[in-house]
Amino acid sequence: MSTDLPVLLAAVSILSALHLAFQARRVGWSRMKHKIMPPAVTGPPEFERTFRAHQNSVESYSIFLVVLWISGIFFSEVLAALGGLLYIVAREMYFTGYINESKKRLKGFYLVLCALLFLTVMATIGIIQSFLDKYLRRL
Amino acid sequence: MSTDLPVLLAAVSILSALHLAFQARRVGWSRMKHKIMPPAVTGPPEFERTFRAHQNSVESYSIFLVVLWISGIFFSEVLAALGGLLYIVAREMYFTGYINESKKRLKGFYLVLCALLFLTVMATIGIIQSFLDKYLRRL
Amino acid sequence: MSTDLPVLLAAVSILSALHLAFQARRVGWSRMKHKIMPPAVTGPPEFERTFRAHQNSVESYSIFLVVLWISGIFFSEVLAALGGLLYIVAREMYFTGYINESKKRLKGFYLVLCALLFLTVMATIGIIQSFLDKYLRRL
Repeated sequence: MSTDLPVLLAAVSILSALHLAFQARRVGWSRMKHKIMPPAVTGPPEFERTFRAHQNSVESYSIFLVVLWISGIFFSEVLAALGGLLYIVAREMYFTGYINESKKRLKGFYLVLCALLFLTVMATIGIIQSFLDKYLRRL
Repeated sequence: MSTDLPVLLAAVSILSALHLAFQARRVGWSRMKHKIMPPAVTGPPEFERTFRAHQNSVESYSIFLVVLWISGIFFSEVLAALGGLLYIVAREMYFTGYINESKKRLKGFYLVLCALLFLTVMATIGIIQSFLDKYLRRL
Repeated sequence: MSTDLPVLLAAVSILSALHLAFQARRVGWSRMKHKIMPPAVTGPPEFERTFRAHQNSVESYSIFLVVLWISGIFFSEVLAALGGLLYIVAREMYFTGYINESKKRLKGFYLVLCALLFLTVMATIGIIQSFLDKYLRRL
């Protein structure tokens, strides 16, 4: 197997996927606790916060994967992996905060934004450098 | 074109994407059947089950893609592609089961979990092997 | 860094991710405008249309990424990037149309389908060519 494979990005991706699956699992537990059978998605505030916390993670997960992999391949795999770990920690803070109280989601949410911004800036710099290398060096 | 491209993973990914799009289409047909105009997402139980069946597929689709590609690139493309086909079949069982009755989603759901677990285990083994190769062989 | 990296696909992916994040931001603004605090997702029709417009983008975003990257790697990076730009423009038409009136989402929606179809056809042709090259040339 090639030793050039981005194994750190792969490891962080699997971790983040397991974390997202774990959030879905906790929605399932909240369904059981509050006796809310699918397909219902409304119920006591605690269940609705848990449900929305997971939904919010789903909504941004593809964005996260895009900026994780592009920053890791076009800029720095180690820095991207660290940004990815920060994202996972921030998502956990968001989720547990949100379940307790709507306002308590905000600290985790701002940290999620920081992690995504960090990855996006690296990805953008990497793309610009790579674009100049690929298309303008020929001139 | 390089013949090293993971064409089986690409083929299974396109199939799974078309299957997800087909599920969205069936939500649209259910909207028409029950005369539920967007942006409404509530209505008769059959419509709500169809809507939630599609949502559940959306929620796990990114997780599926992550474990499909990482297991295929870091462990075995053929086994990953087979796991991917199993996932698509399981999702179809889940979807058609769920539309008929909430409880009938469970058989497909457990098979979805099996497929994801199979891919996740392969991906994890592949990452560990690759990590040892890349970072520890140098010692 | 390798100059073989698909920098156009990466650039379009980052653009599309930022566009999806911007749609989430506009849902947040609509929450503030109509004073709808999370986790609530129901409210005046304008808010519900904004919310659903973003949800619809989330639902198809993974499908978009799959066909974008596979068509770009297996068929043509330039054509895939153009298809990706068309998709982003179509999503913006869909989103702004939907906010104004449910029916006004349709023009953007059909253009979204065109962009996805274009990418899917290229991806399928590319996979078939690559499959024949990889597995049948050996015979």
